[in-house]
Amino acid sequence: MAIARRTLRHAAHGRGAHPLPIPRQPAPRVALSTQLTPAAVERRWQLLSVSQEGREALLDTPTLDALGQFRGSIENCIGALEVPVGLAGPLRVEGAHAHGDYYLPLATTEAALVASYSRGAQLISEAGGCTALVLAEGIGRSPGFAFASLREAARFAEWTLSQRLVFNACVAATTSHGRLKEMRAIIEGNHVYLHLDFLTGDAAGQNMVTLATEAICAHILAKAPVQPDYWFLEANYSGDKKASARSFVGVRGRRVSAEVTIPADLVRRRLRTTPERMADYFRMGALGGVLSGTLGTQGHYANGLAALYLATGQDVACVAESAVGVTRMEVNAAGDLYAAVTLPSIIVGTVGGGTGLSGQRACLELMGLAGPRPAAALAEVCAGLCLAGELSLIGALCAGHFASAHRKLARATRHDSKVQEGGGNA
Amino acid sequence: MAIARRTLRHAAHGRGAHPLPIPRQPAPRVALSTQLTPAAVERRWQLLSVSQEGREALLDTPTLDALGQFRGSIENCIGALEVPVGLAGPLRVEGAHAHGDYYLPLATTEAALVASYSRGAQLISEAGGCTALVLAEGIGRSPGFAFASLREAARFAEWTLSQRLVFNACVAATTSHGRLKEMRAIIEGNHVYLHLDFLTGDAAGQNMVTLATEAICAHILAKAPVQPDYWFLEANYSGDKKASARSFVGVRGRRVSAEVTIPADLVRRRLRTTPERMADYFRMGALGGVLSGTLGTQGHYANGLAALYLATGQDVACVAESAVGVTRMEVNAAGDLYAAVTLPSIIVGTVGGGTGLSGQRACLELMGLAGPRPAAALAEVCAGLCLAGELSLIGALCAGHFASAHRKLARATRHDSKVQEGGGNA
Amino acid sequence: MAIARRTLRHAAHGRGAHPLPIPRQPAPRVALSTQLTPAAVERRWQLLSVSQEGREALLDTPTLDALGQFRGSIENCIGALEVPVGLAGPLRVEGAHAHGDYYLPLATTEAALVASYSRGAQLISEAGGCTALVLAEGIGRSPGFAFASLREAARFAEWTLSQRLVFNACVAATTSHGRLKEMRAIIEGNHVYLHLDFLTGDAAGQNMVTLATEAICAHILAKAPVQPDYWFLEANYSGDKKASARSFVGVRGRRVSAEVTIPADLVRRRLRTTPERMADYFRMGALGGVLSGTLGTQGHYANGLAALYLATGQDVACVAESAVGVTRMEVNAAGDLYAAVTLPSIIVGTVGGGTGLSGQRACLELMGLAGPRPAAALAEVCAGLCLAGELSLIGALCAGHFASAHRKLARATRHDSKVQEGGGNA
Amino acid sequence: MAIARRTLRHAAHGRGAHPLPIPRQPAPRVALSTQLTPAAVERRWQLLSVSQEGREALLDTPTLDALGQFRGSIENCIGALEVPVGLAGPLRVEGAHAHGDYYLPLATTEAALVASYSRGAQLISEAGGCTALVLAEGIGRSPGFAFASLREAARFAEWTLSQRLVFNACVAATTSHGRLKEMRAIIEGNHVYLHLDFLTGDAAGQNMVTLATEAICAHILAKAPVQPDYWFLEANYSGDKKASARSFVGVRGRRVSAEVTIPADLVRRRLRTTPERMADYFRMGALGGVLSGTLGTQGHYANGLAALYLATGQDVACVAESAVGVTRMEVNAAGDLYAAVTLPSIIVGTVGGGTGLSGQRACLELMGLAGPRPAAALAEVCAGLCLAGELSLIGALCAGHFASAHRKLARATRHDSKVQEGGGNA
Repeated sequence: MAIARRTLRHAAHGRGAHPLPIPRQPAPRVALSTQLTPAAVERRWQLLSVSQEGREALLDTPTLDALGQFRGSIENCIGALEVPVGLAGPLRVEGAHAHGDYYLPLATTEAALVASYSRGAQLISEAGGCTALVLAEGIGRSPGFAFASLREAARFAEWTLSQRLVFNACVAATTSHGRLKEMRAIIEGNHVYLHLDFLTGDAAGQNMVTLATEAICAHILAKAPVQPDYWFLEANYSGDKKASARSFVGVRGRRVSAEVTIPADLVRRRLRTTPERMADYFRMGALGGVLSGTLGTQGHYANGLAALYLATGQDVACVAESAVGVTRMEVNAAGDLYAAVTLPSIIVGTVGGGTGLSGQRACLELMGLAGPRPAAALAEVCAGLCLAGELSLIGALCAGHFASAHRKLARATRHDSKVQEGGGNA
Repeated sequence: MAIARRTLRHAAHGRGAHPLPIPRQPAPRVALSTQLTPAAVERRWQLLSVSQEGREALLDTPTLDALGQFRGSIENCIGALEVPVGLAGPLRVEGAHAHGDYYLPLATTEAALVASYSRGAQLISEAGGCTALVLAEGIGRSPGFAFASLREAARFAEWTLSQRLVFNACVAATTSHGRLKEMRAIIEGNHVYLHLDFLTGDAAGQNMVTLATEAICAHILAKAPVQPDYWFLEANYSGDKKASARSFVGVRGRRVSAEVTIPADLVRRRLRTTPERMADYFRMGALGGVLSGTLGTQGHYANGLAALYLATGQDVACVAESAVGVTRMEVNAAGDLYAAVTLPSIIVGTVGGGTGLSGQRACLELMGLAGPRPAAALAEVCAGLCLAGELSLIGALCAGHFASAHRKLARATRHDSKVQEGGGNA
Repeated sequence: MAIARRTLRHAAHGRGAHPLPIPRQPAPRVALSTQLTPAAVERRWQLLSVSQEGREALLDTPTLDALGQFRGSIENCIGALEVPVGLAGPLRVEGAHAHGDYYLPLATTEAALVASYSRGAQLISEAGGCTALVLAEGIGRSPGFAFASLREAARFAEWTLSQRLVFNACVAATTSHGRLKEMRAIIEGNHVYLHLDFLTGDAAGQNMVTLATEAICAHILAKAPVQPDYWFLEANYSGDKKASARSFVGVRGRRVSAEVTIPADLVRRRLRTTPERMADYFRMGALGGVLSGTLGTQGHYANGLAALYLATGQDVACVAESAVGVTRMEVNAAGDLYAAVTLPSIIVGTVGGGTGLSGQRACLELMGLAGPRPAAALAEVCAGLCLAGELSLIGALCAGHFASAHRKLARATRHDSKVQEGGGNA
Repeated sequence: MAIARRTLRHAAHGRGAHPLPIPRQPAPRVALSTQLTPAAVERRWQLLSVSQEGREALLDTPTLDALGQFRGSIENCIGALEVPVGLAGPLRVEGAHAHGDYYLPLATTEAALVASYSRGAQLISEAGGCTALVLAEGIGRSPGFAFASLREAARFAEWTLSQRLVFNACVAATTSHGRLKEMRAIIEGNHVYLHLDFLTGDAAGQNMVTLATEAICAHILAKAPVQPDYWFLEANYSGDKKASARSFVGVRGRRVSAEVTIPADLVRRRLRTTPERMADYFRMGALGGVLSGTLGTQGHYANGLAALYLATGQDVACVAESAVGVTRMEVNAAGDLYAAVTLPSIIVGTVGGGTGLSGQRACLELMGLAGPRPAAALAEVCAGLCLAGELSLIGALCAGHFASAHRKLARATRHDSKVQEGGGNA
């Protein structure tokens, strides 16, 4: 409390901390440009004062030579960052789409993350693999329309629901991969949020649905019998880039569930704990999530998803919406450990976005999931990955070596040695 | 509905899709190791079947030579990924800690993202800059303890609250940077979640608080007058890597608010809309967030945070908890646009984690926030960045060129030209 | 903090507070019985030690004579309680079902509640009335089924979706008023929650859907190609008696929106404030709701709903789920106040439950909504009532006489006078 | 979907359903008055067209004679409603404040409710009673203040935190029972929500804290070094009458946890199921609550709380905030059933509000909790009641006679017989 007040005092009066006023004239602007030529990049560096070493870290010669690959992926480029990729697994998945043993490329700078997921993946594989099933699919946009009255809003909403076939045609004119799956009109007073849910094939599809929605809105504005006072292409109902209850009770991207049964013996040998203790953790951890007011209840899906999304060229900001779901563990009748995860919002593609960049594509390739392979298979692997992470994390917490694993792996700096025992990252 | 059933049918019977059974014997394991030597890396590649081109994308010669820098940051390393970095800004921030014009390095592969944030940052700067203040600070761990009864749980909880000074000493023995800020015991039946909230200086501090908590727990187990049946170092109450209501109503990392007033004239010239329309959007968008059941209500903090976290070596999985907050826009008495964002869970450091890697450190350096500079200043810049993003996104939605901006910038592949008009990324 | 610890200390060691142990032998049981005869009632009173005055308050002679009316509504009856009913309004509603000027009977013991709602209702009526529309309808049960595996769960879910026509027949065999509206299978690992959504005519329908669900489950257990290990008639997914996001983004009972436009002049004269200040409140109050983490964002729907539910024989426990929604206020182009409320879970009937009791039925009758009149009209009136309450409450907060209204009306005890100025109850 | 569209069509075009326009002139107003004289009541009835029978149901001669008792509790009174009261229990509670065997008066018109709670209470008592402990206490108001800038907001917030002693004095001037427990300033841009948390003795205290807050605000407006542009006595952050995450992670009213261990044998004999099946239900039901997005996860606290609140003169609208919490059940090492409930927002008083009305006071009296007895004891009994309800409901769901209990008890209309077997109400 005392500390809070000090922070607040600093906030309230902190200007004194800065002896010099900010100069009237702001620093020069970065000119918006998609150019990747050495000259264009150089112009941007002119704005910055960075050590030569720092500059080279972002823009050594090979990087400069390869900048062209980022065309269409970045503006105002000044170079590229290296993020190390570690290999976890294999993870055996038997899904509706995924089928086989998957090595998992994880891009991260957090010590112990790869070790923990790899341990979990190997445990699952040793137990015969996990089942992972895509249960639903759909990604939405939600334009919003403001009318003069609630009654007009209702009339508009009713009309839009009659336009399904025309909307389908609007979508078809913008994309051959996507189509309108379903729509719903949410009326709040004289406002209508039109939630349009699309299927987007093997692309994550966020841009695809924006363009399709734009086409639908053009039709609406041309033909609707009642016209809005104003409207927006997206009125913040779709749940884009946010953990939302709507996506959680429905779907955004792909809804996937994965399960595995781990024999008690394996739990003991690999995790140094028991199925009973893991079930105890489930109870306390699930209610811990509930008591802290999370959407869903899970341990740390975000770690694995962020690392795999980054490695495979997904939009890593989607972790904000994807890292949500439900983990369950229990002891089954045979005394073995049953574990399941359910994620309603896995947002991945095998085409589009960053998936075509060379390193990212190589990561998809090493999973056997590059290019024409189905995004649904990648989604199932994502769920399996999260299951692996939960098993390893909870196993470490139950065995009491959660902290020690971090210590050992982060200290690897000095020893550079083989590490015997995996651990958790959270 | 029909589609949902088809997906489900696939899920239920999909095994037929895979003509060949998975072989009995799983693929060989990745051996856990932190070694970064060429031989160790090579052994990992032996497991994979990837094209030569793919392999080189992750592990060309310069990358191989530089792998050593990733010591302590990754296990089972097979190379590194390049993520392009674009420059946005400058963003003028007058905070309690941040003070000046900041160029913003954003690592992303999503077209239009840098353009949109840069547009917003420049708009803020042109309006004289934003104010951004850290309002609270603290990052927690929540070990859980199971007792025989509710009464024992209450006795334990009461005892822990008496141990404040001893706990302080436990923490001091593990870290010279962190200290215990406050603690709270949450009792649920015979379970106690002990929420320990720490200050961690200029490090994000997640590992620091794990070790400090371990030390506190050791004391508890040695001395508590009533001993738990079992306990866990983290019982999933802390909100780690999850959007949680507890963090939202309190703090996790740093709670920061940022505001700016944009003259109506600037809104018209730069965003091609009006303060009134932006306020209309605020109303519809805020309720859109509410109607979809998000925690807080905002547009797309996740985009900017993910890109800046990645560029500056933060734990990008934290986007799951950081991309939460409240955006407000309104027309003030002078007819200008007032805009504010409040984020309760900015989790950043200027030391530790990935901040020491060469590229990441260069990104901190170009912001003037590397190494010994305060993490609180970086947190204030993060809030300013989110404010910039909201202004640009909402501006684009109001002006009706949200979709067109994406089209133009993504199409840059072929034209490689200067782009005139910014837009939104969502 | 100090206080918290004292409370905890009391909790932990409080036993000392009770000098005498509880006797070994528990007090005698209340024998379960639905009998309402004087003798049966008398037997129950034998268990209690209550003053003669207290007993008469619950069971004076007229009450004893009239107990028969409670047959089928209560067990172990010991008498009846009087709750005063106040009259508010009239409230003019133009809905899809409601149509006219409604006097509102409100049963409450909270001073200022009736005054506040009456003031709001009269304001709405003076402004020409509100529009209120039922937008969706449906009330659910969600039996849960546990299977051996996720794949079996998917197979089961897919089968249930094929049984729609048979399920319809199952329902028809249990009720002539209800029918299955739609169903959805939620799969979580090897568990399936089958959400069955019903239409229940003019009854609230909770018991109706329980019996219909029981019939569907009997069919499932007899015919499903894959049988559950265990199952429950309700697995806590339906949102019954709870504010739930599922109901909030969908519907439970009836989803209703109501709106009104109040001329600026009326706002000034009746509420002693301005549309602008009310819009200011909306902004701050809506974000106050968001910042405190409520589902939806509104002021105090619970007050009016509880009082009207109680007066009209609804299940007052449903206030837990009904008192959720979204309030919006803004200044329209003409400078007048636009206000709207949207409630997704109004659960009311005009038949069944307590609606047939004499007083409750009289309350429905004075609204013109007894018996054969549509429940949808009552739902629209409920939304209008909430709108009235929000206007009056927010008006009082804006005019700064929120507290004073309470003072005046609660003090009526001594003065028993006509009161000039209404106020808010929260 | 088809049905949804029909509902919407009705909403959009439904006006046709009403052949007659509403007359221009609204029906006459109910004049605001607290008078309870026969003449005043009669004037109100003149407005209504109700059958003589209906009128007598609300206003027979004894009721008219007794209206005086409602002075200060209602405005515009037209009579009173009878709600039957059933007796459940006894419930043995060993708390920090409650101590003994409590008969529970439940006012409800829902068949099976009393039976179900009584069954649960007797089960708990037979098992030796439950422990129930108040863990925290506090009820808040949150005035809101709007400033010119974030920096001013911070300065104001910091100043308020320095005024603790003066605020205490402000409170003391308005009440001798309440005092300020703690305060917190929530800053969102240039807005400040000042959350003031009070202790209110044995009153629920909502009006007490309103008046105390008014006094604090008067001081603020007189003395604050930075003055708000506008302010509101309550800015909707306090969670009043709403399920809110803030209250859920903290407290509103009283936070209470209750637990009991039921021997396996008793579970079998009384509930006709096993501890194992109850634990299965806990798992599926808890995740059902999570999957549907409720705050907390529980079965039907609302039923018992609404009935007890109503019977004992509490503000029944508070069920909206009170019926929130966490239920846990598990099999302990001895094979018995452990069950616990935790409710963060029990809002009850033994003085004030409706507690002084004759019937309501009688209900408190029969519990031994009238008047000067501590509200904390009543809160502990409330938690025990909820525990009883969960045990009975879940027991019924596990034994498969949830629906049949409803059938039997509701059918009591015709048979008026003793019923052998209790059941659940949900």
